[in-house]
Amino acid sequence: MDSMSHSKNEEVETKEMDIRSMSSSRRYVHSARYLHKVGVPPKQNLFQEFKATVRETFFADDPLRPFKDQPRSRKFVLATQAIFPILEWGRSYSWRKFRGDLISGLTIASLCIPQDIGYAKLAYLDPQYGLYSSFVPPLIYAFMGSSRDIAIGPVAVVSLLLGTMLSDELDPVQNKPEYLRLAFTATFFAGVTQATLGFLRLGFLIEFLSHAAIVGFMGGAAVTIALQQLKGLLGIKNFTKDTDIISVMKSVWSNVEHGWNWQTIVIGVSFLSFLLFAKYIGKRNKKFFWVPAIAPLISVVLSTFFVFITHAEKQGVVIVKHIEKGINPSSVNQIYFTGEYLVKGMRIGVIAGMIALTEAAAIGRTFAAMKDYQIDGNKEMVALGTMNIVGSMTSCYIATGSFSRSAVNFMAGCETAVSNIVMSCVVFLTLEFITPLFKYTPNAILAAIIISAVAGLLDFEAAILIWKIDKFDFLACMGAFLGTVFSSVEIGLLIAVIISFAKILLQVTRPRTAILGKLPGTTVYRNIQQYPEATKVPGILIVRVDSAIYFSNSSYVRERILRWLMDEEEQVKAECQSTIQFLIIEMSPVTDIDTSGIHALEELHSSLQKKNIQLILANPGPVVIEKLHASNFANLIGDDKIFLTVADAVSSCSPKPVQEQAQLSSRRDYA
Amino acid sequence: MDSMSHSKNEEVETKEMDIRSMSSSRRYVHSARYLHKVGVPPKQNLFQEFKATVRETFFADDPLRPFKDQPRSRKFVLATQAIFPILEWGRSYSWRKFRGDLISGLTIASLCIPQDIGYAKLAYLDPQYGLYSSFVPPLIYAFMGSSRDIAIGPVAVVSLLLGTMLSDELDPVQNKPEYLRLAFTATFFAGVTQATLGFLRLGFLIEFLSHAAIVGFMGGAAVTIALQQLKGLLGIKNFTKDTDIISVMKSVWSNVEHGWNWQTIVIGVSFLSFLLFAKYIGKRNKKFFWVPAIAPLISVVLSTFFVFITHAEKQGVVIVKHIEKGINPSSVNQIYFTGEYLVKGMRIGVIAGMIALTEAAAIGRTFAAMKDYQIDGNKEMVALGTMNIVGSMTSCYIATGSFSRSAVNFMAGCETAVSNIVMSCVVFLTLEFITPLFKYTPNAILAAIIISAVAGLLDFEAAILIWKIDKFDFLACMGAFLGTVFSSVEIGLLIAVIISFAKILLQVTRPRTAILGKLPGTTVYRNIQQYPEATKVPGILIVRVDSAIYFSNSSYVRERILRWLMDEEEQVKAECQSTIQFLIIEMSPVTDIDTSGIHALEELHSSLQKKNIQLILANPGPVVIEKLHASNFANLIGDDKIFLTVADAVSSCSPKPVQEQAQLSSRRDYA
Repeated sequence: MDSMSHSKNEEVETKEMDIRSMSSSRRYVHSARYLHKVGVPPKQNLFQEFKATVRETFFADDPLRPFKDQPRSRKFVLATQAIFPILEWGRSYSWRKFRGDLISGLTIASLCIPQDIGYAKLAYLDPQYGLYSSFVPPLIYAFMGSSRDIAIGPVAVVSLLLGTMLSDELDPVQNKPEYLRLAFTATFFAGVTQATLGFLRLGFLIEFLSHAAIVGFMGGAAVTIALQQLKGLLGIKNFTKDTDIISVMKSVWSNVEHGWNWQTIVIGVSFLSFLLFAKYIGKRNKKFFWVPAIAPLISVVLSTFFVFITHAEKQGVVIVKHIEKGINPSSVNQIYFTGEYLVKGMRIGVIAGMIALTEAAAIGRTFAAMKDYQIDGNKEMVALGTMNIVGSMTSCYIATGSFSRSAVNFMAGCETAVSNIVMSCVVFLTLEFITPLFKYTPNAILAAIIISAVAGLLDFEAAILIWKIDKFDFLACMGAFLGTVFSSVEIGLLIAVIISFAKILLQVTRPRTAILGKLPGTTVYRNIQQYPEATKVPGILIVRVDSAIYFSNSSYVRERILRWLMDEEEQVKAECQSTIQFLIIEMSPVTDIDTSGIHALEELHSSLQKKNIQLILANPGPVVIEKLHASNFANLIGDDKIFLTVADAVSSCSPKPVQEQAQLSSRRDYA
Repeated sequence: MDSMSHSKNEEVETKEMDIRSMSSSRRYVHSARYLHKVGVPPKQNLFQEFKATVRETFFADDPLRPFKDQPRSRKFVLATQAIFPILEWGRSYSWRKFRGDLISGLTIASLCIPQDIGYAKLAYLDPQYGLYSSFVPPLIYAFMGSSRDIAIGPVAVVSLLLGTMLSDELDPVQNKPEYLRLAFTATFFAGVTQATLGFLRLGFLIEFLSHAAIVGFMGGAAVTIALQQLKGLLGIKNFTKDTDIISVMKSVWSNVEHGWNWQTIVIGVSFLSFLLFAKYIGKRNKKFFWVPAIAPLISVVLSTFFVFITHAEKQGVVIVKHIEKGINPSSVNQIYFTGEYLVKGMRIGVIAGMIALTEAAAIGRTFAAMKDYQIDGNKEMVALGTMNIVGSMTSCYIATGSFSRSAVNFMAGCETAVSNIVMSCVVFLTLEFITPLFKYTPNAILAAIIISAVAGLLDFEAAILIWKIDKFDFLACMGAFLGTVFSSVEIGLLIAVIISFAKILLQVTRPRTAILGKLPGTTVYRNIQQYPEATKVPGILIVRVDSAIYFSNSSYVRERILRWLMDEEEQVKAECQSTIQFLIIEMSPVTDIDTSGIHALEELHSSLQKKNIQLILANPGPVVIEKLHASNFANLIGDDKIFLTVADAVSSCSPKPVQEQAQLSSRRDYA
C-alpha cells in the first residue's frame, strides 16, 4: 500500500518535471493533472452584458418570442392579439364553452350584487358605485386580460383600505362631492400605476411583499372588516370611526344598553347563521358549491321582502333607502388633475393600486397553476390598469380580482373571461331595472354577507404551515395581522412591507457558511452538520460560502471564515493533530462577487499568508471567475490554486489523500 | 458493451425484487443503491433556532468568547479591558513603541493644525472649533478605541456635509449662536447614534453602503470641497452658497473682472504648487512620507510671516484675523434638548454620524488588515460615539478617522493610539500658546491645504478597478459622484444609498439559473456556458438555481425553470432526440427556502406532472431539506426523488448512464 503510493508520487513528479522542462509553466501542470480546468466564459462586451442583464430583469418571460421570424402582417396580428387576448381565444370559442361561462357568470353575478353594495359602504361610497364597478371593469378585463378564472369587481380589502385612506383626507359625509372626486382620482392613479408597472415591465416589484406578510395582512383586514360590520349587524348608530379592535369593542360595549336594536340583531344574526351554514354545505361537498354562491342573494330577497311587509324600518332597522337607478354616468371631469388633491389622490391610488395588483396577481397565478396555463404578469397589469383608468372615468372605484368570487367562478366551471361579460350584463340589467327594489334591504343583511365573505380571508391553515416552515415568516405574518387589527390597515401594511424588506436585507447581510467534510467512500464533500458521517481532512479546512459575496456581507464572510479557522485551530491544538495548512473555499454557491467582495478575499488572503496558510478556491462560477481574473486576484493567489471541485483541491494539497480517494471512489463505483 | 449493460440491468432488477420482497419499501432500495442519503439535520427546538439566528446576526464575532470559563474577578478585569483597550495594550507598552508613537504623533499634529482650521470653515464654524475637535476626541479615542493606526479629528467630507445640512436650517452668519448650538446638538446625536449602533450590535447597518457608492461619493465630495476653495484661492468676495459645480463655476467666472484678487492668487497658487510637489515627492519615495506631512505647516508659517511683513492684508488678501486662545470651553448647556431644533439636530446628527462611521470603519479595517490585527467593529463604534458625545459637551464638532492623516500616521511608524495622545498634546499647546500667531495666516493657504488634502479622496484607480470588475457597481459609483458634484452632497448620498439598495433587491429578485452538463470523463456536472465541453444528458434537463428561493424570487425561479424546459423541448424536437422525461434541480446553492418558495416548487411539480416529467432534487442543504419535510413537499414528490448529488440523481433516471459513469469515473481515478 505504502510502496504503491510512493511509486505513484514518483510518477507524478517525473511527469511534472518533464512538462516543466517543456513549458516551464505551472499552469500547464495543473491542467494536465486534473482533467478539467475552471472554465472562464467567453468575454462578453459591455453591450451584450448590459443587454443580458436588462433581458433577465425586465423581459424574463421573453415576451417577443412568438414574434421572431414572422412576416410583418403576422406581427401586427400577433401584437393586436397580445393586447386583446380575446381575439386569440375568441376564435376557438364554442357553444360548449359558453354553457360553462353562462352558468358561472350567473352564479358570480348573484354573489357580486349584494357584495358590491356592501363593499361600497366599506369605502364610504353610495351603494350604486359598487354596482358600477362590477359593470365596466369586468367588460374591459374580458377583452384584455389573460386569466380565465378571475372574477373582477370591488373587493373587501381594497374597499376598506381606500375608505380608510380617503376618509383621512376628507369627511365622506360633510364633503361628499369632494370625497367622491378624490375616490375617482385615486382610482385613476391606481389604474395608471398598474398599467405603468406592467408597461415598464416592473411587475416584479409587487413580489417584494412576502406571501407570509400578505396572509397576515389579509387576515387582519378580514377581522377589521368583520368588526366594522358589527355596526350594521347590531344596529348601532353612534359607531367609532377608528378601525382598531380596541376602539371598536369599546364602541360596541358602550352602546350595549341603548344603542343596540334587537329587531336588527334578529334579522342580522339569523341570516348570518343561514349564510355560514350555506358556506359549510358548500365546503363539505364540492357539488353544492352553488349553495353559498346564491345564499347571499336569497338572503337579500327574503329580508327585503320581510322588511317591506313588516315595515321594520320604523322599528329602527336601518335600510339601504335609496340606490340610484341607471348605468354608470361619466366621471371624467370629476377627476382632480390639479390642486392639492391631485397629490393626495395619487398617493392613495398608488398604494391601493399596488394592493389590488397583489391580490389579482395571486388569484391569477393560483388558478393558472390549477388549470396549467400561463399568465403574463406584466400584460395582466396593463389590463387591470386600463380597466381601472376607464373605470375612474365611468364612476367606478378600484376593482380587482376577488378571491371568493373567483373561487366560485372556477368551481362553477367557467371556461373563459366570457363569464365576466355575463356577470357584467346581469349587473347592467340590475342597474337598469331592479335597483329600486333594494330600497328596503336592511343594512344588517349586507353586514352579514360581508362577514361571511371575509371569513374566507382568514387563512388559518396557511398560517400554521408558515409556522411549521419558517418562524421568521410567521413573525412577519403575525406582525402584519396584529398591526392591522390593533392599529389600522395602513400600519399593518407598513409593517408587512418593512418586515418583508428586513428579511431580504438580513438574508444578504448574514449568509450561511458551512464546514465541509468528506463522505466516507466517495469524493463528495458535504456540510458536516447535515452529514455527521462526513469527516474533516487533517490539515485542511474546507469552508463553503452560501451566497454571493457583496458589499453587504463581504466583511461578515471574511470574519466568519477567520473565525471558523480560529475554532478549528483551537480544536486541532487540543487534539494534538497536524496544524491547518490549507484553507479551501468551496465557491459553488457564490454566484457573484463585487469589488467589496474581492477586497474581502484579498484581505483574507493576506491574513492567511501571515499564518502560512494557503488559500485555495474550488469551483467558482462563470461570473466569479471572470471577476477574479479582471481584478487580478486569480494571479495573486495563483491560477493553479483554483480547482474544479473540492476533491481536486484537496488532492492538490497533499499527495496522500489523492490515492485514498481514488481507491475509495473506485470501490464505490464498482460496488 | 450493450450486452454488458443488459446483464447489469437484470442484476439490478433482481436485486430490487429481492429487497422488495423483503421490505416492500422503495426507500430502502434507494438507500441501498446510493451510499448516502440526503441528511436531515437533527431538529432544533424553537428557542435554539432563535438563539442561533440572533447570535449569527448580532454576535457574529462572538465577543464573549474570552469570558468563557473564567472566575468572576477575571471577568471584571476582562470587561474593563473590553471597554478600555488601553488597559490591555498599555501593560506591554515600551519606550521603543513610544519612540514610534512620538514621531508619528508630532507628524500628524503638524498636518492636522492647518487642516483643522480649514475644515472648520467648511462647516461654517470659527477656526478654533476645528482645533478643539482635535484635542478632546483623540484623547477619548486613545483610551477606548481598538485601532492602532487611525488618526482622529475633523475630516473634510463630514465637515462639508455638516456645514451643508446645518446651513439649510440656520444661517451661519446671521444666526451664529443658534448655528453653533445646532452644530453641538448634531454632534451629540451623531455620537449617540454611533454608540447606540455599536451597543445594540447593529454595526452591520453601515455595510449597506456599497464600496462603489462610497468611492463615488467621496470623489464627488472631494471635487465639491475643492471647488468651494476657489473662493479662498482666488480671493473672491461674493461667492455662491450653492455647492453644485454649475453654480460655483458661474460664480467664479462672473467675478473674473473685479472679484479676483491677484495678490491672493499669487500666494495661493504658489503654495498649492509647493504642496502638490511635496505630495508627489512623498508618493514617489515612501521614505519621504514626512515631506507632504509637514509641508502644510511650513506653508502656513512661511505665508503668515510673509503677510505679516508685507501687510498684504491691506491689499485685499483675506486673513484668518481672529482665533480664540485657550482650550475647549464647556458646551453642555448649549445642546438643544427641547424645541424644534432638537429634531433637526437629531436628523443631521444621525446622517453625519453614519457617514463618519463609514469612513472610520473603512480606515480601521484597512490598516488592521495591513498589520494583521482584529478590530471589533461594534466596540469601535461605541468608542467613536463616546468620543463625539463628550466632544459635543466640550465645544467640538463631529470628529472621526481621517484618511490622509491615518495614512501619514501609519507611514510615520505609529505603534499604538498613543500617537493620538501626542497629537492631542501638541494641539493643546497650540491652543494655549500659539493661536494668536495664526492671525495673519491668509485664507488662500488654508484653501490650498484643503485642495491638496482632498485630492487624495479622488480614487481613480479604485474607479477603474470597479469598472473592470462590475459595471453595475461603476454605475453606482458614477451616480453618487455626479449627484454630489452636480447637485449636493445630500443628493449624492441619497443616490448612493438608493443604488446600493437597488442592487441588493435586484440580486434577490433575479437570481441566476444555469443548465448543467456532464464534464466528459467525470461524474461532475457543471454550467454548460462556463464549460462548453460539458454535455447534456439525453432525456434529462438539469437546472441549477443559484440563490435561496424566497418570496422575492419564487415566481421568477419557477417561470425561469419552465422556460428552460420549453427551450430544451423545442431544441429536442428540432433535433429529433428523445423527449425530456426528468427535470433535475441542483439545489446546492439554494441555501434557504420560505413558504413562497415551497409554493413555487409545488406549482412547478404540478405543471411538470401534466407534462409527464418527473421532478428530482439534488443536494438540498440542511435548512431546505428540513423545510421540504415540514411542508410535506418531500413526500409529495417522493423521498426517493431527492439525491445527494446530481450524478446519483442522473443515474436513478435510467440505468444506462449509471454504468457509463462508473466506467468513466473509474477510468479517471486510475488515470
